[in-house]
Amino acid sequence: MQLLEERIRRDGEIIGNDIVKVDMFLNHQIDVDLLCEIGKEFKRLFAGKNINKIVTIEASGIGIACIAAQYFSVPVVFAKKGIHRNVGNDIYEGEVFSFTKGITTKIGISKKYLNPEDHILIIDDFLANGGAVKGLIGLIEQAGAHVEGIGIVIEKGFQSGGKELRDMGYQLESLAIINSIDDGKIVFG
Amino acid sequence: MQLLEERIRRDGEIIGNDIVKVDMFLNHQIDVDLLCEIGKEFKRLFAGKNINKIVTIEASGIGIACIAAQYFSVPVVFAKKGIHRNVGNDIYEGEVFSFTKGITTKIGISKKYLNPEDHILIIDDFLANGGAVKGLIGLIEQAGAHVEGIGIVIEKGFQSGGKELRDMGYQLESLAIINSIDDGKIVFG
Repeated sequence: MQLLEERIRRDGEIIGNDIVKVDMFLNHQIDVDLLCEIGKEFKRLFAGKNINKIVTIEASGIGIACIAAQYFSVPVVFAKKGIHRNVGNDIYEGEVFSFTKGITTKIGISKKYLNPEDHILIIDDFLANGGAVKGLIGLIEQAGAHVEGIGIVIEKGFQSGGKELRDMGYQLESLAIINSIDDGKIVFG
Repeated sequence: MQLLEERIRRDGEIIGNDIVKVDMFLNHQIDVDLLCEIGKEFKRLFAGKNINKIVTIEASGIGIACIAAQYFSVPVVFAKKGIHRNVGNDIYEGEVFSFTKGITTKIGISKKYLNPEDHILIIDDFLANGGAVKGLIGLIEQAGAHVEGIGIVIEKGFQSGGKELRDMGYQLESLAIINSIDDGKIVFG
């Protein structure tokens, strides 16, 4: 998605050789006009799919998922992080290991909001090693629901998550794939 | 807002005499069509204001703010919770005390995304004692920016936040005000 690549080049903050911060338009300040274009592109890419729900994970995924959901005319469910036992037993639970932060976070979705009839599009902002997406797939599988596709705004092509998920057979669409960051220059795939 | 009150009556889960969970359509599963109506109503209520940015707080506020932002044609900035020192000094910091949870949480917004020229609409899902909104006002004041108004989806009229903020002179608009919960029945203001 050219508009997005241009925006990452212009406003992304490169840190070392493997991190691009997009706090300017996606992860802290949010350019809602850009999110609308992202939402329309997801709709185009998954136009052939029967999708009745979008699932994401707090916090950065929520805005992207809500704007995209307008083009699919479906509700959003977001997985909560740091689920504690006092939420009750009425929850599908999983864990997400973040390589970036080196920590494992519990995630959960109430059993009320995932069921076997659901055909789900997973949406998230970043895909690196795929921990968050795999965590969400785990919750959806517990519910017996079906993953129709995975829509990612920015994939780090030099990390393994994208390849693993495609090898597992999922339709994974990333709107921008960063293949490498060399001397402060981003190379898209 | 009648549509919202009806939805709270239908799908809100009453817990004791002071909690209404709206996980079904606002805080876990999100009815994006309803959010669109909420966004339009905020636009109508703040039509006379010169607003160039919407500020909210993660996580539940983000979806509401992003959908509403489309009707104002402005970007969203969300305060992050649990800010740590390693984020750097380039941040406006504050604290939010939650009476419900009995804990204090650090919040912060990067100095890049708030500046003295900003005319801000604060949006959040719930208002009870007003801790989150007051925390956001604190960050905005540190930046020398101006709060044009406060838009809340559900206000608990039996807690003090709403009265305090109105007494401080803010234009606070709550789309549903719960005055009391008596024997499992919600009384709106």
